[in-house]
Amino acid sequence: MAIAVTVWNEYRHEKRNPRIAQIYPEGIHGAIAGALTKAGYAVGTATLDEPEHGLTDEVLARTDVLTWWGHMAHGDVRDEIVAKVQKRVVEGGMGLIVLHSGHFSKIFTRLMGSTCNLKWREANEKERIWVLEPGHPIAQGLPEYIELEHEEMYGERFDIPAPDTLVMCSWFQGGEIFRSGCCYHRGRGKIFYFRPGHESYPTYHNALVQKVIVNAVAWAAPVEGPANSFGNKQPLEPLAK
Amino acid sequence: MAIAVTVWNEYRHEKRNPRIAQIYPEGIHGAIAGALTKAGYAVGTATLDEPEHGLTDEVLARTDVLTWWGHMAHGDVRDEIVAKVQKRVVEGGMGLIVLHSGHFSKIFTRLMGSTCNLKWREANEKERIWVLEPGHPIAQGLPEYIELEHEEMYGERFDIPAPDTLVMCSWFQGGEIFRSGCCYHRGRGKIFYFRPGHESYPTYHNALVQKVIVNAVAWAAPVEGPANSFGNKQPLEPLAK
Amino acid sequence: MAIAVTVWNEYRHEKRNPRIAQIYPEGIHGAIAGALTKAGYAVGTATLDEPEHGLTDEVLARTDVLTWWGHMAHGDVRDEIVAKVQKRVVEGGMGLIVLHSGHFSKIFTRLMGSTCNLKWREANEKERIWVLEPGHPIAQGLPEYIELEHEEMYGERFDIPAPDTLVMCSWFQGGEIFRSGCCYHRGRGKIFYFRPGHESYPTYHNALVQKVIVNAVAWAAPVEGPANSFGNKQPLEPLAK
Amino acid sequence: MAIAVTVWNEYRHEKRNPRIAQIYPEGIHGAIAGALTKAGYAVGTATLDEPEHGLTDEVLARTDVLTWWGHMAHGDVRDEIVAKVQKRVVEGGMGLIVLHSGHFSKIFTRLMGSTCNLKWREANEKERIWVLEPGHPIAQGLPEYIELEHEEMYGERFDIPAPDTLVMCSWFQGGEIFRSGCCYHRGRGKIFYFRPGHESYPTYHNALVQKVIVNAVAWAAPVEGPANSFGNKQPLEPLAK
Repeated sequence: MAIAVTVWNEYRHEKRNPRIAQIYPEGIHGAIAGALTKAGYAVGTATLDEPEHGLTDEVLARTDVLTWWGHMAHGDVRDEIVAKVQKRVVEGGMGLIVLHSGHFSKIFTRLMGSTCNLKWREANEKERIWVLEPGHPIAQGLPEYIELEHEEMYGERFDIPAPDTLVMCSWFQGGEIFRSGCCYHRGRGKIFYFRPGHESYPTYHNALVQKVIVNAVAWAAPVEGPANSFGNKQPLEPLAK
Repeated sequence: MAIAVTVWNEYRHEKRNPRIAQIYPEGIHGAIAGALTKAGYAVGTATLDEPEHGLTDEVLARTDVLTWWGHMAHGDVRDEIVAKVQKRVVEGGMGLIVLHSGHFSKIFTRLMGSTCNLKWREANEKERIWVLEPGHPIAQGLPEYIELEHEEMYGERFDIPAPDTLVMCSWFQGGEIFRSGCCYHRGRGKIFYFRPGHESYPTYHNALVQKVIVNAVAWAAPVEGPANSFGNKQPLEPLAK
Repeated sequence: MAIAVTVWNEYRHEKRNPRIAQIYPEGIHGAIAGALTKAGYAVGTATLDEPEHGLTDEVLARTDVLTWWGHMAHGDVRDEIVAKVQKRVVEGGMGLIVLHSGHFSKIFTRLMGSTCNLKWREANEKERIWVLEPGHPIAQGLPEYIELEHEEMYGERFDIPAPDTLVMCSWFQGGEIFRSGCCYHRGRGKIFYFRPGHESYPTYHNALVQKVIVNAVAWAAPVEGPANSFGNKQPLEPLAK
Repeated sequence: MAIAVTVWNEYRHEKRNPRIAQIYPEGIHGAIAGALTKAGYAVGTATLDEPEHGLTDEVLARTDVLTWWGHMAHGDVRDEIVAKVQKRVVEGGMGLIVLHSGHFSKIFTRLMGSTCNLKWREANEKERIWVLEPGHPIAQGLPEYIELEHEEMYGERFDIPAPDTLVMCSWFQGGEIFRSGCCYHRGRGKIFYFRPGHESYPTYHNALVQKVIVNAVAWAAPVEGPANSFGNKQPLEPLAK
C-alpha cells in the first residue's frame, strides 16, 4: 500500500502576498503534494487555518509521514496539536520532514530540545547543497550537489543537536555554510530537516529539491519494529537467592 | 578557579521514609556534594522545596554544572524554572548531569524530545555497568565494569535519542540491559545521563559511582567556545551583480 | 530486479567436524542462502577453498550485498582478494554483512581500523539480543528481544569504532553485554555487523536471526547516490582578482 | 606532568623548495612545535628521513599525542612503522592529530578504512572554517569562524567515515565546502583531522590555527580508562544447570 503523506503548510504568505501566490498558485503545499503524488505516495494536505490546523486525530492516525512548512505564524500553532504530532512521531513512528523556516516551528524545537536558531539573509544569492553521504537512501538519484541560483541564506551556527546522519551541507555565495540535510531518530519516529524553500523563490518546483523530499519520505516512513512495552516488569531470568 | 557545581535533589524520600534517611542522612544531595567537594569542585546544593527550588537566577548564573536527582515529584518542578535551566544549558553552556530516575524529569525530557520511558523493577538484583569507551574522559580511573550488588533494574527500550557517545551500558541479573552512561550536546551545553542511584540503595556512597560523577562534571563543564550570533546578517563576501 | 547477495563462508568446520556438519548439512552458507532466497533475493554462495575464494571480479561486480562468515582461517584469505572486497564496498557501494567470528576477518578489521578484539566463552549460555532502535529498518518485524537458548558469549570491550547506529545489544547469562547489531558507512558502502552464529549452535536456522539478516541485506543494498569525482578541480565560482 | 607531543613532518618540501623554506625556515614541524611548546606541552619532533622516521619504540612509548604532516612521500613511510603507530593509538591510547594532506597518509587511511579521497585546487583562494560545536573543547577560545586569506581548496565528497563529532566545516571561495575538523575514537585512542596547512601558505603561523592544534592535543591526550582484557573468560555469574 502506498505510503500516506500529509503535506502541512502554514499557507499565509501565499494568501496575502500576490508575488508569492504567483510562485505558488496552489500554495507551497500544492507544489510539494504534486511532486509526492507523482512519486506514487498517497498524499493529503493540511493548513494552519483549517480546524485543528487540518491535523485531526483521524488525519494523524493515518499519516505515515508528515511534511511541515511554516514561517510567520509558528506561534499560532496550538500547543495541544503540537503535542499530538510529537506523540505520533515518538510513540507512533510517524516520519516528519521539516522544511526550511520550519526550523523554528514548535514541533521541531520540541523534538530537538535546543533553540534551533541560525543566521539568515535575503539577498538572492546562490546556494549549493553538497551531498556528504552518497550511500544514504536520501541521496538516491542526486548529483554531487544541487545548485539553487537564488535562495535565502541560512548560516551556522545552526543550534541543533548533531544529526544522527548529516546527509547534506550547503555553501552560500556570501560566505556561509549550513547543515542542510539532517537525519534524526526520536522515539520510534524518524525526522529529516531539509533547508531550502524560502517562500519568495520557486524552490519547491525544482526537480532535485522534489527528489530529496520524495527520498526523505521513503526513508522516514514507519517501520514495523518491536512494540515496546514500558513500566514495571518481572525478571526474565530467575534471580539467585 | 574551581568548577562550580550545584547538586539538585528532590529531597522528599529522605524526609518521609526513615529507611531512606538512614541510607542518606544528609540527603542524596549531601552524599553527592560530599564526593564532589572532595574532588576539588566548588559545590552548592539546591532542593525542590526551597524557594524557586533553590535555582534562583543568581545560582544558575554561577553554576558551571548542575546535577539532577528527582523521582516522585517531577510534576512539582515549576515550568518556568525548567525553562530557565534549559536556557542556561543550551544558551549558556551549563553542564547537566541527570541521575537515575531523573530520566523522567521535565528538564531531561525537554532536552531529549522523546518520552524517556523505560522498563523497571525493584528486586535487589545485581547491576554490572560495562565501560564501552575506555578512551573517553568519563572512563578515567574506572575498571572494566562497576558492579553494584543491589540496584533497581532499568531496561531497554530506553526511549532516548541515540547518545552522541555511549560510554557505559548495564547488565542486569534478571535479563535486561540498559544504556547507562549517555553523553549529549544540546546547544552550548553538555549533558550526561547516568543510570544508577535508586533511593533505597547506598549507590551514591560507592566510590566508583562517585568517580563517574566527578569525571562527568569535568567533561560537562562549559567551554569558552565562540559566542554565537544569530539573526539577520550582511554577506561576508561580495555577491556577484 | 532482485537484490543480488553473495553468501560467503569459510566452510571448513562443516567439512572437518561431523557434529557441525549435522547442524549445517549444507554448510553455514547453505542455511543463510536458503533464508535469503526465500526472502526473494537473488542469492549465490562462495567459499574459502574455491579459486579466488569464489570472489572473482565477475562475482564481486554483480554482488549488491556480501555476507561474510569466517572463523578459524582468517589468515588464509588472500590479501589481494580482501583489497578487492574493500574497494567494492568503499568505491562501489556493495553492502557487507559481517557475521559472528567475522569480527576478526581481514575485511572487517581493515574497514574498522581497530583490533575488533573481544571477550568470549563457550558455555552454552543464554543470549538475549535487545533491539535498541525500534524505528530502524533492520528492526522490522522483530520482537523486543531475540532469545537464543545456547550461544557462545561475546563480551565488551568490543574494540570497534562506535557504530553510526547501534541497533541491537546482547545480554548474556554469565554477566556480559555486547554491541551485537552495528551499522557503519564506509565510502559508498554500508556495513552491518551481527553477532550471533557460533558454528556449534543452530543459530542460522532461527527464524528471527534469519529475519535480521534479511532486513540487513535490504538496508545495506547499494543506493544510486552521486557518482563522486575526486582530484584537481576548477572553481565553480569566479574568484575575486 | 606536561602532555608529551611528537610533531612528525615529512620535511621534504622545505628542503627542496626555497619558497617553502622561506615560509617555514625551521620546517613545518618547527612552526607547529613552537606553538605547542609555548602552550606548555613537552614537545619533540620527528621527520621522514631520520632513522625509523624518528619514530623509534622509545619515542612512540613516551608520546601522548602525535601530530602528522605529510604530502608528497606517503609511500616512503615504512609499513612496519605505520603498524606500530596504529597499535600505539588503538591499543595504547596515543592521540593522533592528522593535518591537511595527511588525509592520504597510510596511518590515516588505515585507521579510517576508506579511501580518504577528496577534491582539491591551488588557487590562492579564501577559506573560512566555521565552528559547528561551540561547546566542544577543541572550540575553546575560537571565534565563530577562522578566516584564511589564501589556502588550497579541499572539497567534498571527502571519503571518510562520518566523524564521531564534526567540530568544524570549511567554506571556500570557489564554491566548495569541506568537513575540516573531525573527531574519531579508534580503540583507546582519539584522532583529530584538521584540514588547513598547505605547504605554500603560512597557515601554521596563524594564531587561531595554532589554537586549534593546541586544543586538539589536550582533547586527544590519553585517558587512564580501564585496562581492557580480551580473549577467553570465565562467567562472572553462575550459569543455571
